[in-house]
Amino acid sequence: MAKGPGLPRGTRDFGPSEMIRRNFIFNTIRSVFRLYGYQPLETPAIENLSTLMGKYGEEGDRLLFKILNSGNFRSKLSDEKLINLSLPELSAMIAEKGLRYDLTVPFARFVVQHRNDITFPFKRYQIQPVWRADKPQKGRYREFYQCDVDVIGDESIFNEYELIRIIDDVFSRLSVRSSIVLNNRRLLNGIAEIIGEKDKIGVITVAIDKLEKTGIEAVNSELAAKGLSTKAIEGLQPILFLEGSAEVKLNKLVKILEGSDEGMAGIKEMRTLFDYLESDALNSECVLDLTLARGLDYYTGTIIEAKALDVEIGSICGGGRYDDLTGIFGMEGVSGVGISFGADRIYDVMLQLDLFPKHSGQDTQVFFINFGEKEEKYSIPLLNSLRKAGITAELFPSALKIKKQMTYANSRNIPWVIIAGENEIRGDSITVKDMISGQQHMLNKDELTDFFREKI
Amino acid sequence: MAKGPGLPRGTRDFGPSEMIRRNFIFNTIRSVFRLYGYQPLETPAIENLSTLMGKYGEEGDRLLFKILNSGNFRSKLSDEKLINLSLPELSAMIAEKGLRYDLTVPFARFVVQHRNDITFPFKRYQIQPVWRADKPQKGRYREFYQCDVDVIGDESIFNEYELIRIIDDVFSRLSVRSSIVLNNRRLLNGIAEIIGEKDKIGVITVAIDKLEKTGIEAVNSELAAKGLSTKAIEGLQPILFLEGSAEVKLNKLVKILEGSDEGMAGIKEMRTLFDYLESDALNSECVLDLTLARGLDYYTGTIIEAKALDVEIGSICGGGRYDDLTGIFGMEGVSGVGISFGADRIYDVMLQLDLFPKHSGQDTQVFFINFGEKEEKYSIPLLNSLRKAGITAELFPSALKIKKQMTYANSRNIPWVIIAGENEIRGDSITVKDMISGQQHMLNKDELTDFFREKI
Repeated sequence: MAKGPGLPRGTRDFGPSEMIRRNFIFNTIRSVFRLYGYQPLETPAIENLSTLMGKYGEEGDRLLFKILNSGNFRSKLSDEKLINLSLPELSAMIAEKGLRYDLTVPFARFVVQHRNDITFPFKRYQIQPVWRADKPQKGRYREFYQCDVDVIGDESIFNEYELIRIIDDVFSRLSVRSSIVLNNRRLLNGIAEIIGEKDKIGVITVAIDKLEKTGIEAVNSELAAKGLSTKAIEGLQPILFLEGSAEVKLNKLVKILEGSDEGMAGIKEMRTLFDYLESDALNSECVLDLTLARGLDYYTGTIIEAKALDVEIGSICGGGRYDDLTGIFGMEGVSGVGISFGADRIYDVMLQLDLFPKHSGQDTQVFFINFGEKEEKYSIPLLNSLRKAGITAELFPSALKIKKQMTYANSRNIPWVIIAGENEIRGDSITVKDMISGQQHMLNKDELTDFFREKI
Repeated sequence: MAKGPGLPRGTRDFGPSEMIRRNFIFNTIRSVFRLYGYQPLETPAIENLSTLMGKYGEEGDRLLFKILNSGNFRSKLSDEKLINLSLPELSAMIAEKGLRYDLTVPFARFVVQHRNDITFPFKRYQIQPVWRADKPQKGRYREFYQCDVDVIGDESIFNEYELIRIIDDVFSRLSVRSSIVLNNRRLLNGIAEIIGEKDKIGVITVAIDKLEKTGIEAVNSELAAKGLSTKAIEGLQPILFLEGSAEVKLNKLVKILEGSDEGMAGIKEMRTLFDYLESDALNSECVLDLTLARGLDYYTGTIIEAKALDVEIGSICGGGRYDDLTGIFGMEGVSGVGISFGADRIYDVMLQLDLFPKHSGQDTQVFFINFGEKEEKYSIPLLNSLRKAGITAELFPSALKIKKQMTYANSRNIPWVIIAGENEIRGDSITVKDMISGQQHMLNKDELTDFFREKI
């Protein structure tokens, strides 16, 4: 047999059982976003490359999927140009559009484009796939969904508090036990300043971000290799290993960061945030972790990350405050804060811990066996009346052998089977079989809908 | 000011109000699909071009969006090749993947790929965007959603009946009055055979498909121009203008198509279908229209189309039976039938007729004014308790001027505003303002959730 059709590397189909589980996650996240007053937005998969290029660093530019111009894409290229242009130049000539790489840049583009129609603060959520030409590997795909929720145009730390409540609410509803880790870029800036390495803030955060993974010796070696003085590295040690509650840590930092305005501003923001968090109890524990950095070049204030407590899988939600999101498109001075849920990892956690509900509530509940033309006619109005009552029901479309029909019903895990054969028709009745207990009841056909209304 | 960022031609953003309306349509369609036992499927946006090319005709191949290979896409191309290859050859060398053009071919690919794991009949629905490099124009986009529902692996006309009920059910729920038009490819084959032009079935159906638009004279001219004999054209006239109910038309066709086995088979299928349709009343009228063809090369049996009765907009849902869907991937003999809802057109119809519900049930219901730090602390537990009760509520994130906060609340059409200032705090109370009537009530703060539970 010839090789059948396949999928591009790093892409996936989602069959019915995966879809039902994934929708459970998406619907939960969506309903929480709504509950907090966030509004839906969708942007097209295709954006102009001028919108996307240069927004994700050099690596990002390489990982963008570019779309070949339609029609004669080489009409503007002389033979000479075709041969002599560099790869990026050639690419720019023949591909002007690309697939969205994340939901943040399209969101910024939307806000700038519609700035005059939007009432700020603008609270939006967006659940859509993104594409990255990354090397596919276990758990990393070239097409995957992001679930972003952001508020833009307001500086109050109350927004951070609400996003943390959203995390807590989502994971509570999904029964995923999680820990919420917090930090603030201004604290990191203050620390770099106090140890005399203000310019090396990038190096420092990249290194300490790995503390949990590689240990302190590796971190210190990296810092030394990147040119941090021995004194600075020494100065950093007590800060990295601060112990106690957020309040205790912040009190210690007041002394450590004395003299750094930036550090003091960070302390004030974190105190405000933890004050909010104490005003009404959460299910998840919230901790201050000075080693949390997450994409340093991006965040300017609070940094947020959630980890699953019962599965080692890394971050399942993360985000933070950014003060210059729309600046890339020429609209300055708009502060925003947002988080993104990692649907694929949440899916893996829930599968591993068996947290998905056994029944989606949307699977077929009632299955009518098809015994032939006459019985079909008898069954159709009953089938339709069940559906009118909101009960998902099917009649097998052909009068195939009963065994074949039952194979279908079993493959779909349908809990109730209706037998409406000659006997039943004669008595204006139907037989209901409970597929779990194996028990059968005969009912008057008029009782059918009420019977299932009670059962389901 | 420099030109701001924009979108590629033929693509759109969907802001909050559009999203809420679109989701109303998608959720309605989805819930009906589920009620009839259809299961969700999603396939990736990116498919191998080997899967897509040659499936939509020459025109379709041209309209596929092709994705530039990642990395050095010209590494395999010598300068000579680069210059001398034809456009399609060059395209094939530098772009191996493309964006899905419809949901049918990916569905066929999925079925063939998973044939050993699927229990047939396989009933699936799929609601996802597709991309076509068509010339953008009013109402035609390069990225748009399709809502497909298909059953594959069963030949019974009962499947057609169920799909027609789905159409009826969806449009009833959306309050869109519609007419369902039916035909059968085998009737068309029979007609072509009887008028002695069996080989010209393509020409005939393309021409008569335009009858409603251009009139009979234009159709006849086209038929003559395409080489149909005068006798054949004459023979066609009475058939095109058959009058009466489906039953009457089919009875007349029995005489007209006598001698054509194919025609007789078509009559039998249509009789079976109309028998089903009479077994339990529908809201929509179902008519037999012998001029309905819809993408002739594709359908092999029943052809289905729904039109809005109150807006002239063309088809809002269509489909039919195809006997060789998976044949394109080497899996023969699997019959399927499916329909596709046109979300954009349904949206336009509903907007024009003002059929969208005034409230989505998901908009923010309750808005807390932010009076400052102390009042915020007082309001937060109340805010959270409303959300726990499932009531969408917001507190303005900053203590800006009241006017600014109310501008926000009004732009969001929030019906209830909560005032919790110094006076209220002193009395453990809150003031609720009904934004529609303008009336205010003072409540004990413990009564708040119950108050809204009753109101909303």
